[in-house]
Amino acid sequence: MNASKFPTFLPCFLLSFTFLLFSTSQATLASSHGLPRPLIVEYDRAAVYELDEEVKLFCDSWRLAVEANNINPWKTVPQECGAYVKDYMMGRAYSADLDRVSREAGAYAKKVELGSDGRDAWIFDIDETLLSNLPYYADHGFGLEVFNSERFDKWVDEAAAPAIQSSLKLYKEVMDLGFKVFLLTGRSEKQRAVTVENLINAGFQNWDELILRAPDDQGKQAVVYKSAKREEMAKEGYRILGNSGDQWSDLLGSSMSSRSFKLPNPMYYIL
Amino acid sequence: MNASKFPTFLPCFLLSFTFLLFSTSQATLASSHGLPRPLIVEYDRAAVYELDEEVKLFCDSWRLAVEANNINPWKTVPQECGAYVKDYMMGRAYSADLDRVSREAGAYAKKVELGSDGRDAWIFDIDETLLSNLPYYADHGFGLEVFNSERFDKWVDEAAAPAIQSSLKLYKEVMDLGFKVFLLTGRSEKQRAVTVENLINAGFQNWDELILRAPDDQGKQAVVYKSAKREEMAKEGYRILGNSGDQWSDLLGSSMSSRSFKLPNPMYYIL
Repeated sequence: MNASKFPTFLPCFLLSFTFLLFSTSQATLASSHGLPRPLIVEYDRAAVYELDEEVKLFCDSWRLAVEANNINPWKTVPQECGAYVKDYMMGRAYSADLDRVSREAGAYAKKVELGSDGRDAWIFDIDETLLSNLPYYADHGFGLEVFNSERFDKWVDEAAAPAIQSSLKLYKEVMDLGFKVFLLTGRSEKQRAVTVENLINAGFQNWDELILRAPDDQGKQAVVYKSAKREEMAKEGYRILGNSGDQWSDLLGSSMSSRSFKLPNPMYYIL
Repeated sequence: MNASKFPTFLPCFLLSFTFLLFSTSQATLASSHGLPRPLIVEYDRAAVYELDEEVKLFCDSWRLAVEANNINPWKTVPQECGAYVKDYMMGRAYSADLDRVSREAGAYAKKVELGSDGRDAWIFDIDETLLSNLPYYADHGFGLEVFNSERFDKWVDEAAAPAIQSSLKLYKEVMDLGFKVFLLTGRSEKQRAVTVENLINAGFQNWDELILRAPDDQGKQAVVYKSAKREEMAKEGYRILGNSGDQWSDLLGSSMSSRSFKLPNPMYYIL
C-alpha cells in the first residue's frame, strides 16, 4: 500500500504536538490528583523506518480487516505489527482517520431533519471515542500486551485521558444542532465520578445521560449490553440517528442507529 | 494468522500474473463471443510514485472510511485519489486484502458447528466478491467515472470477468464443509444466462441457488432487496452463518448473517 511505501507523517512536528498535548493534560490533571506522572511518552521513531515492505503490507491488511470487522475477535496486535501500530497511532494517520470520521458524521448530522419533540438522539462511546487512552497504551505496548483491567482501571481513576479533539468538535456540533447526547460506555457505575471528572476536564459537558454498566450488566458482552440500552432509549421514544464508537460492539446489534460511525482503533478489540 | 506473515509473491510477478489472467480469460471468452478485446490492461506505474504525501494521507483516510462504512453514500472516487486507487487495485495491496478476508472467513467456517439438516448457509455476492470486474474498471478510471449501467451491462454480457482467486478458494472450502451456498446478486434475472456462463467459466459450480433481481425487485435499494431475500431464506429454515460481500448493502439490514465478511472495494458504492 502507498502509506507504507512512503511514511506519511511529519515526525517531529506531530510528535512534539502529541507530547505537548499529553504533557499538558497530564500536568494539569496530575496537580488535581497529586499523582506524579511522567511528562514524556517515550517513543523510538527509528524502529518505524526499519519496517520492511512485507511487514507493512501484512499490517496494512491486518488493520483494514480489523476496521472492517473481518477479524473478530482478536486479543492483541500481531507481534510483527507492534512498531506499525505505534507508528500509526503516534503519526499523522490516526489523527487524519479520526478527523475524517468526525467530518463525515458532522456532515450527516447537519443534513438530518430533527423533530420538534427533542427526541433525536446521538450516542457516543467514551474510550477511544471521546477520550483518548493513548497515554496509557503508549506505556503498554500499543496493543501488544494482553488487556489488563486492573492496570487500566488505575489509569481510568486518574481521570487524565485527553479529549479526542475531532470528537469534541463533533460533540459540540450535534449538541448545537439539537440532538440529545447519550454517552454509552462499558465503564462501570463505580467509575462514574472519575468519568464525569475526566469528561469535564477534557471539555465535554451538558450531555443528557451518561450510561455506565450497572452491577447487572457486568459480564454481558458489550454488544448485548449496548443493544439493551439502545432498546430502552427507543422505548422511551428516542430516535437514534447517530452513533459514534471505536468498536463494532458499540454499533452493531439491535436498535441500531440510522447511521453509525466507526472510529479507528487498531489497539484493542471488545466483544 | 501465521500463514499470512510472509506473502509469497513479488510485485512484478503479481502484475504479470494479473495481466496474464485477464488476457487469458478475455482471449478465451472473446472467441466464444466473437468480440475483439484488448489483451492488455494498460497501466502506467510511474504515476503512482508521484503521489505526494498529503494526497496519500488523504486517500488512505478516505479508503479506510469507505471500507468501515463511514462515507455513505458516495458516487465516485475523489478526483485526487484516482492514481491512488489505481495503484491499490493493480498492486499487491488489494490482493493481500482480499486474501486476508477470505482466510478469516475460512478459519471461521471451519470452526462453526453445522447441523445435520443441511440448512447451514453461506451467502456470496457476485461482483467484486466472486468475480472481478477489474478489467472493466481499468477501462473506466477505476471508479473516477460515474457508474454507467448501460456500459457495464455490455461488459457483463461478455461473461468475461475472472474469478477472485481467494474467493474461489473460500467458495470451495465452505462447500466442502457442507454449507449450502447461495449467490445473491444485484444483477437482473435477464442476466442469468451470462452470469451462469461467467461463473462456470471462472471455476464456480454446484451452488444451491443463484438469486437475481426479479422485475419486482428493480429499483429497490440493494440493502432492502438483499434483506428480503435473506428473510425468505430464514423462513425456509436456513441458518445464515456466513456472508461475503464487497458492499455494506450486501451485509447489513435484516436477517443478517452470524458473521459478515466485507471484501475491499474502493471503486464504487451501492446503496
